[in-house]
Amino acid sequence: MSEKLSDLEAQMHGLGARARDAATKLSHATPADRTKALQAMAQRLRAAGPLILAANEEDVARARENKQTAAFIDRLAVDQKRLEGMAAGIEQVASQPDPVGAVMAEWTRPNGLRMQRVRTPLGVIGMIFESRPNVAADASALALRAGNAIILRGGSDSLQSVNAIVAVLREALNESGLPGDAIQSVASADRAAVGMMLAGLSGTIDVIVPRGGKSLVGRVQEEARVPVFAHLEGVCHTYVHAGADPQKAIDITVNAKMRRVSICGATEKLLIDRAVLADLLPPIAQALESQGCELRGSEEVQAIWPMERATSEDWRTEYLAPILSIRAVENIDEAIAAIGHYGSHHTDAIITEDAAAADKFLNEVDSAIVMHNASTQFADGGEFGFGGEIGIATGKMHARGPVGAEQLTTFKYVVRGVGHTRP
Amino acid sequence: MSEKLSDLEAQMHGLGARARDAATKLSHATPADRTKALQAMAQRLRAAGPLILAANEEDVARARENKQTAAFIDRLAVDQKRLEGMAAGIEQVASQPDPVGAVMAEWTRPNGLRMQRVRTPLGVIGMIFESRPNVAADASALALRAGNAIILRGGSDSLQSVNAIVAVLREALNESGLPGDAIQSVASADRAAVGMMLAGLSGTIDVIVPRGGKSLVGRVQEEARVPVFAHLEGVCHTYVHAGADPQKAIDITVNAKMRRVSICGATEKLLIDRAVLADLLPPIAQALESQGCELRGSEEVQAIWPMERATSEDWRTEYLAPILSIRAVENIDEAIAAIGHYGSHHTDAIITEDAAAADKFLNEVDSAIVMHNASTQFADGGEFGFGGEIGIATGKMHARGPVGAEQLTTFKYVVRGVGHTRP
Repeated sequence: MSEKLSDLEAQMHGLGARARDAATKLSHATPADRTKALQAMAQRLRAAGPLILAANEEDVARARENKQTAAFIDRLAVDQKRLEGMAAGIEQVASQPDPVGAVMAEWTRPNGLRMQRVRTPLGVIGMIFESRPNVAADASALALRAGNAIILRGGSDSLQSVNAIVAVLREALNESGLPGDAIQSVASADRAAVGMMLAGLSGTIDVIVPRGGKSLVGRVQEEARVPVFAHLEGVCHTYVHAGADPQKAIDITVNAKMRRVSICGATEKLLIDRAVLADLLPPIAQALESQGCELRGSEEVQAIWPMERATSEDWRTEYLAPILSIRAVENIDEAIAAIGHYGSHHTDAIITEDAAAADKFLNEVDSAIVMHNASTQFADGGEFGFGGEIGIATGKMHARGPVGAEQLTTFKYVVRGVGHTRP
Repeated sequence: MSEKLSDLEAQMHGLGARARDAATKLSHATPADRTKALQAMAQRLRAAGPLILAANEEDVARARENKQTAAFIDRLAVDQKRLEGMAAGIEQVASQPDPVGAVMAEWTRPNGLRMQRVRTPLGVIGMIFESRPNVAADASALALRAGNAIILRGGSDSLQSVNAIVAVLREALNESGLPGDAIQSVASADRAAVGMMLAGLSGTIDVIVPRGGKSLVGRVQEEARVPVFAHLEGVCHTYVHAGADPQKAIDITVNAKMRRVSICGATEKLLIDRAVLADLLPPIAQALESQGCELRGSEEVQAIWPMERATSEDWRTEYLAPILSIRAVENIDEAIAAIGHYGSHHTDAIITEDAAAADKFLNEVDSAIVMHNASTQFADGGEFGFGGEIGIATGKMHARGPVGAEQLTTFKYVVRGVGHTRP
């Protein structure tokens, strides 16, 4: 093992141990302590605007030198408006109920033992993200709301920006009497640091949350030895049932696909009941094309509206672009089967006025979020009222759907007796 | 790759695919369907007594030939009483509320979207256990109560018994109109089958539950690529605080250690506040020794009551035997720190009449179960009112403490709109 790797290991394990200590202290703080610290974080972020913008300018200048794309630089850049967005986001999280200490259930046993299931913080969150510096502020706020410490590892391109933001947030914690080490960022740009985080830093990291492209998330899911809250992709379906209201079918489909094509909740596949295909495909296709959407369809769909032929690859592809593939289904059972087969268990919607069909769809589709007469673009922690989200999970364990503060908790059983011994 | 391994792989993957199909069908069944099937399972188990006892006799005869220990044969043997215990256990689970479909939370957003978080089955449980055949019946019942399919892999010594029990349970499912493949056992005694289960059988297994000794659980935790609900060991502490009622301290400590020394909730370490050490150690030590408990202590403890000196190993050891190590602590903070350092986050108890000290302990000790004035031997799903348990988990993810039917569920978000598009 090289000397350099040993240094990095020592550095990373020190960081993990400090995070664990900070998490223990945080878990003993009160909800009011955490709210005060969150408010201080927002205030300090605003006050430190010039400092953060200057650090970000360095990152942006280097990205330009490295000939990064305009889209990349747009994700990286922080201006006054985005800075205010971060501060307001933290205030929004501060105004959310604190989940820690909530009694989730309580009951008394026939022998008089009193039982409670009580929410507790998860511990230490490892956040691995790419170029958007605002993730550092958003994720730190949600972690803190639930009494957790966080270790942030952004892309090397945003290192100056993330370090500046983290320094400000740590000052706010210290000022509020909470441990600054509850928020730390990995100083090294060495990719080996990510591998150490995925191995859990000797048991100090409780969960990894990756935010970024499919290759990052895929690597994390493949290599992590600790639990991961993530979705690899959002192959979201909108299903127009025979009982759909035509105008709702048009409006929802267009919004679900085109409002923002690059988010994980954007619809990528449209299923239409064969019985209404000839009636509903033309107005839906026309509305989508008028907004610049490229359509790809099965032969049956092509026969009604001219478009590219969808390949077998298309049915599984998350485009994150203004492209939609369309197929007809015989009935709701075929639609549910297609979603189970080709979807990614993220978010899927049915458009119908038929209550029994809606209930069947909502019951039988095994996705994190199932919707009736609503756009899949609502798949978002803010839209759910969670005061933001650290990510969206498609796994079945622990957290599923938008991951807000409440999903960053675990629980323990508190048992109160009066001298109870077990017979 | 050998022909044999290929055969086994094909067999195991077929089993996984059938389990997944059965799980999908089960998740669409009603709570009443599942209750009916559970009742049929209990009835059929009773009716098939002679068959199961005969199969078990074969296993027991082979174990005797193989010169297994008496304790091993006792765990393996099924008599009429144990068979009745299995049937009654299934009926107990049948009488528990069905967790599937329960609305865990619901709220309406300012835009009128109606949100629900609804319990759904986890999917397919992989159960890996050792010689006790009753685990097959207990675990199948809990899995089914929560709408899950289960794949059972018992020790090779109990193969005939487990196969006989599973055959009967499958008949009951078929008779009730539910898929028999919801309960399957691995026919092969090849250890490679376990490795395939730990790899998740191509995504068909959602969670692995190991039941057995530390080496089995350790292997599963080390190798599994899917989530595991387990505890490696129960290094449970009882802490006698300065404010303890002396009689409760004696009664609870003796029960916590000696009621059954071989269960994971048995107390292994006793901490006593220094202020009451001279007063309380003698009566507690005397009561324990009178029941045949060997004591090991720190120097300070030895000075008050003669016993073996505890080594540094002792503080971390789960004896599962009539042995207890005892040390003094200066105060509650030192007790909490010792439990965090040496414990296994399973079950820890404080004995005190001081309500503030109790609250501090219950709040700050980070274990799956924390207790006040009660014996750690209550760490058991049945004692919690869960109608049994498939195991006890010490991880922080998803399930923690006793794992009953409710813990074998996940959830999804159901969103109802009336044509909602996202602005």
